[in-house]
Amino acid sequence: MSMRFYYAPLSCALATHIVLEHIGADYEAEKLNLRENDQNTPGYLAINPKGRVPALVTEQGILTETPALLMYLAQTYPEAKLAPLDDIFSLAQMQSINSWFCSTVHVNHAHGARGRRWSDDLDAQKTMKDKVAQNMTDSATLIEGEILRGPWVMGDQFTVADAYLFTMVSWMKVDGVDMSQFPRLSDHYKRMLDIPAVKKVAPLHGIQ
Amino acid sequence: MSMRFYYAPLSCALATHIVLEHIGADYEAEKLNLRENDQNTPGYLAINPKGRVPALVTEQGILTETPALLMYLAQTYPEAKLAPLDDIFSLAQMQSINSWFCSTVHVNHAHGARGRRWSDDLDAQKTMKDKVAQNMTDSATLIEGEILRGPWVMGDQFTVADAYLFTMVSWMKVDGVDMSQFPRLSDHYKRMLDIPAVKKVAPLHGIQ
Repeated sequence: MSMRFYYAPLSCALATHIVLEHIGADYEAEKLNLRENDQNTPGYLAINPKGRVPALVTEQGILTETPALLMYLAQTYPEAKLAPLDDIFSLAQMQSINSWFCSTVHVNHAHGARGRRWSDDLDAQKTMKDKVAQNMTDSATLIEGEILRGPWVMGDQFTVADAYLFTMVSWMKVDGVDMSQFPRLSDHYKRMLDIPAVKKVAPLHGIQ
Repeated sequence: MSMRFYYAPLSCALATHIVLEHIGADYEAEKLNLRENDQNTPGYLAINPKGRVPALVTEQGILTETPALLMYLAQTYPEAKLAPLDDIFSLAQMQSINSWFCSTVHVNHAHGARGRRWSDDLDAQKTMKDKVAQNMTDSATLIEGEILRGPWVMGDQFTVADAYLFTMVSWMKVDGVDMSQFPRLSDHYKRMLDIPAVKKVAPLHGIQ
């Protein structure tokens, strides 16, 4: 059975989309238009009651949340070697990075366009938006200095964390981060753009 | 070598602390006082440059981020059977739950006391605080109706996700969620309090 993958442009679904393409998975991609509220239709809420993307419909059931999807694909396609599956400690380091991306960097970014999640006050939402560039710059500083080993996130091995980092950097670029301060991140982003799966998928996510 | 575990009361480190105790790990716990800014001393930043808890110093290196620590401990102590390690899909479901706890439920809670992360404006921070009870209630509704299988998060198997859920519910209780609306969550919390590891660790985290 072909898997069905739900995504939206400019969302974190980009990371999983890159990995699906990179491993040559048998999947069909279905685009949601978040501005038209596709994620809150009864049909989609039956797939993901959280009303978010990504969601992956597999033969065994439905999975959501980027770090879980990335790990699932790395484990399901071990021949692609997209995670250090045989080394518990290295795997935990990769999971730590992916977890921090979802809990902190994604959340920093989300305060730009989705401040209404955390405050009903429009002025308050504006003050959140005002802080996004600084918070994303702080995240970039930590990745540049402490997290990205080079050439890939985990060093010599290309992993699912690289697809996730690419997604984070694509957001930094629109969030007003001065990327000239971050040559290692910029170089990583550029090398990602040379990967066939990224070439194919990035334009579907509004990245040219 | 004994592991060293850094935690702070009322933080998400509770989940990992319960698991360390439950598996009988050889570890020493070190308490940080976040109000005195222990997490931003040069000494602690050398351990975790993010200035957050938890952090676990192992023989192989330092690990941070709750979902990664939980998975690491489940994999390192497989005999404790704290994750469905032999079933890729079930494991992904558990990871999805833990990932959502860190990226969404934890973040909802954090807007109560840590709104300054996302806005410099004191009035804006107050509006975030005002929305916490509603957001945590929404999270509780989703867990009660869609996530918690019962009796444990993943069904019959007690896993690391139960220690994490216990932590989330301990926050709901202080965040003004009316727990009488959530009998299944309340029952889970009560049964967790009967577990020896929880009995021992919860008081260290300000839970009686």
